[in-house]
Amino acid sequence: MTAAGKTLSELAQQAGGRVVGDGRIVIHKVASIEEAGPGEITFLANPRYQALLASCKASAVIVGPGMVLESPSERRKAYLEAADPYVAFAKILQLFNPSASCREHISSQASIDPGADLEAGVTVFPHVFVGKGTRVGARTVLYSGVFLGEQVQVGQDCVLHPNVVVRDGCRIGSRVVLHAGVVIGSDGFGYAGEGEQRVKIPQVGIVELEDDVEIGANTTVDRATLGRTIIGRGVKIDNLVQIAHNVVVGENSIIAAQAGIAGSTRIGKDVMLGGRVGIINHLTIGDGARIGPGSGILQSVPPGVMRSSGLHAAPHREWLKVVTLLPQLPRLWSLVRNLEKKVSELVKSNDNKS
Amino acid sequence: MTAAGKTLSELAQQAGGRVVGDGRIVIHKVASIEEAGPGEITFLANPRYQALLASCKASAVIVGPGMVLESPSERRKAYLEAADPYVAFAKILQLFNPSASCREHISSQASIDPGADLEAGVTVFPHVFVGKGTRVGARTVLYSGVFLGEQVQVGQDCVLHPNVVVRDGCRIGSRVVLHAGVVIGSDGFGYAGEGEQRVKIPQVGIVELEDDVEIGANTTVDRATLGRTIIGRGVKIDNLVQIAHNVVVGENSIIAAQAGIAGSTRIGKDVMLGGRVGIINHLTIGDGARIGPGSGILQSVPPGVMRSSGLHAAPHREWLKVVTLLPQLPRLWSLVRNLEKKVSELVKSNDNKS
Amino acid sequence: MTAAGKTLSELAQQAGGRVVGDGRIVIHKVASIEEAGPGEITFLANPRYQALLASCKASAVIVGPGMVLESPSERRKAYLEAADPYVAFAKILQLFNPSASCREHISSQASIDPGADLEAGVTVFPHVFVGKGTRVGARTVLYSGVFLGEQVQVGQDCVLHPNVVVRDGCRIGSRVVLHAGVVIGSDGFGYAGEGEQRVKIPQVGIVELEDDVEIGANTTVDRATLGRTIIGRGVKIDNLVQIAHNVVVGENSIIAAQAGIAGSTRIGKDVMLGGRVGIINHLTIGDGARIGPGSGILQSVPPGVMRSSGLHAAPHREWLKVVTLLPQLPRLWSLVRNLEKKVSELVKSNDNKS
Repeated sequence: MTAAGKTLSELAQQAGGRVVGDGRIVIHKVASIEEAGPGEITFLANPRYQALLASCKASAVIVGPGMVLESPSERRKAYLEAADPYVAFAKILQLFNPSASCREHISSQASIDPGADLEAGVTVFPHVFVGKGTRVGARTVLYSGVFLGEQVQVGQDCVLHPNVVVRDGCRIGSRVVLHAGVVIGSDGFGYAGEGEQRVKIPQVGIVELEDDVEIGANTTVDRATLGRTIIGRGVKIDNLVQIAHNVVVGENSIIAAQAGIAGSTRIGKDVMLGGRVGIINHLTIGDGARIGPGSGILQSVPPGVMRSSGLHAAPHREWLKVVTLLPQLPRLWSLVRNLEKKVSELVKSNDNKS
Repeated sequence: MTAAGKTLSELAQQAGGRVVGDGRIVIHKVASIEEAGPGEITFLANPRYQALLASCKASAVIVGPGMVLESPSERRKAYLEAADPYVAFAKILQLFNPSASCREHISSQASIDPGADLEAGVTVFPHVFVGKGTRVGARTVLYSGVFLGEQVQVGQDCVLHPNVVVRDGCRIGSRVVLHAGVVIGSDGFGYAGEGEQRVKIPQVGIVELEDDVEIGANTTVDRATLGRTIIGRGVKIDNLVQIAHNVVVGENSIIAAQAGIAGSTRIGKDVMLGGRVGIINHLTIGDGARIGPGSGILQSVPPGVMRSSGLHAAPHREWLKVVTLLPQLPRLWSLVRNLEKKVSELVKSNDNKS
Repeated sequence: MTAAGKTLSELAQQAGGRVVGDGRIVIHKVASIEEAGPGEITFLANPRYQALLASCKASAVIVGPGMVLESPSERRKAYLEAADPYVAFAKILQLFNPSASCREHISSQASIDPGADLEAGVTVFPHVFVGKGTRVGARTVLYSGVFLGEQVQVGQDCVLHPNVVVRDGCRIGSRVVLHAGVVIGSDGFGYAGEGEQRVKIPQVGIVELEDDVEIGANTTVDRATLGRTIIGRGVKIDNLVQIAHNVVVGENSIIAAQAGIAGSTRIGKDVMLGGRVGIINHLTIGDGARIGPGSGILQSVPPGVMRSSGLHAAPHREWLKVVTLLPQLPRLWSLVRNLEKKVSELVKSNDNKS
């Protein structure tokens, strides 16, 4: 992480924003507000943490508009004021941490079918398997233990981390990042009939990941029964997420860890699913909808709304009573309805008497 | 997926059902009702989608009893009428998509202990590890990155997808399919004592998967502390499911994605667990019980019932109030009980007066 | 599991506890109370199962203080009476099942960077990858398919099961056990900006696992954005758990299967999280807190308390009504408040009249 330094002015130019203070100071590294020292830049995205600035030893701080402080002690610091300080922070981190060093080397301990086609600059670690008819785009990196089945297509500048599996026929766009243990194109969960007579429905569709998708460790994306499971351009998916067969996720949607989407459900564009959200099959989640962490979705959700059903834990003994009473909620309602009727009759009869 | 064609009559004979219309038309492929074209067969399992038939270009349609349409435009189509159209669809898909081509080849890049025993026709991809005393049945396929520990038994005609791990001593029946990243026989989660004095309980039991089991990607099945964790014949388990030590799952049960079953719980036969169902330890779920998606199970469930506790998300702001009020449900009940008493006294006193 | 026998007196000496009955009987194996036979020892941790003792064929039984039975049939058995019978059981199991046989062999089919440093007695299975500058401590075992990136540190006497991935720069203490498919150091889930303008925040921190940590199969632990994600000494984590970037888990905490902890949350020491617990980001869970299975945590939890929000499934049809009524809980409260007011007015007016 220690790289050649850049002046604050250079950082402002490359990441966006304006310098407040001395633009000639040299920055070598990005660090957290608690840990940053001289020669390092940190960021203050949330005004709540402003108090931490007093003791902060960073040479420069990325802040939002109007957040530069005027107290004498603070004026000694240099600032990079950016419209979205979090974006500036991300871009400066990128400048100091260029992505995975492509070795442009194909290990002799990898197993690559003669009928596979690897473009220029591809890196293949040992113990990789690449099947017949599979194509891998320029500068893509396949880490150790990656398995690409037959007739797979992987675009340019992708990174497939160790032990990623992409089964036959699946298509992956460019600049896609698949973290360790991701499985793309496992069979959808489909059976017909019951008991002894149950029959597996062959899953003969594929998965298509569009450009700029990133998928977290040990997440699974099932192939379609027929047709395609589609993860749209720019979608970001966290760890241990389940995407079932024939699901479609629209562009730039965000899916947090341990969420699960059942078969054939369509997620719109720019949707945000919190961690552990579960959505049943054959629903539609509208563009821009946001679902809070831990929520269940049993019916389609219109565009643009925010929905939740996540609970917050209460003292254990009290909660045990709630668990017992909850199924009687309909009875409680009818008791209250009944009381309302009686009380209104009493009021009436009282009024008549007076 | 494009295979030699079969006439509709041949399909009816092999998959079951009767032809309505011209049985001589030749079918090459199965496709969805929206995508099917000439030479292709599709299916209509749900009468709700009947309207799609009008614009459907498939040469033939699999339908249920009494679903053949009588309008002139529809009569031009050929139909395969089956008792369970979904089963017929599955069988026809199987006819057109025979299962994974067994290469009957053992890669020299695999690592197979001399003391392992591989029956005829086994396929071993590169980077596979097979330990001492392990036996693999005829025609089984071990994809790249599969690890079989010592004294493992795998039956005939199994498919172990890439990076499947089966640890020492576990037994797998015949025709078992384990999808990529499945772990069989990891240690159960067992410790005795507390804090600094905590002691690991060695997990010295095994996992036994009976015949015709299928397990989804990245699912984990822990070995028993003592004895066996058992997945019964014909059980189908989806992706990212957790099966803890000493669990027993009865024959032909179905477990959807991200469900979790804690230690020593017994699941009966023909049980259906929806996605994300969580069951605590030492319970019994009766034969044929069905648990809705997202449900928690804190007590045993009798046979044959359907149970749920999955929630559906509400508008976020309203839900925040619900989250706050829910722990006060017992208080609400006692308020209502109290009101009931008062109101009944009022009614009585009112009656006395009149 | 069949090892050289030990007398009951030897077991008492090595595992703790006192013999009641004949200490010279020889024990060869530990078995469950239902399955144990002659020459075997079993345990009775829960007095509820005492009835099983009558039919138990074990030669000896581990029991708690005061649990030795006085009936004539039971007096024929030998007992090992221990303060914590579960701990004695664990220790005796360890005596009969010494941990994984270290082969002290480095496979020629592994890929080890010349710049890596392996201490004495390390075992490396085939298809392992060890990157530049990585150090592996004495007697550590790396199973098949393990990937250690660059500049990784692994302590002594660790066991990394098949297909474990540890990415660049992460540090692992001594006596750490990582089960199959565990991913350490995958990127945290961090992006700045929205839609087309979304920018990845490089995740340049590391993960640090302290001594005596054990992590279950297919669990994922993300690297910090900056700084460290820390799993404290003695922490035990079950299968399919998600630990997000910059999380800190205090010493000796226990996290059951499928739990998930979002970014920057701090878990104290000796905390217990039940299965499927979900905790949102930037919270603090106090030392010794316990969270019941299936609970959501949306606010910080003080030390030492027990909290729950897991639900228990009800009959499906009844539950559907609950799901509909639950979002109206605030309205129900206001109805009841309103009724209270009316009733108290009625009571008052009634009192005035009498």
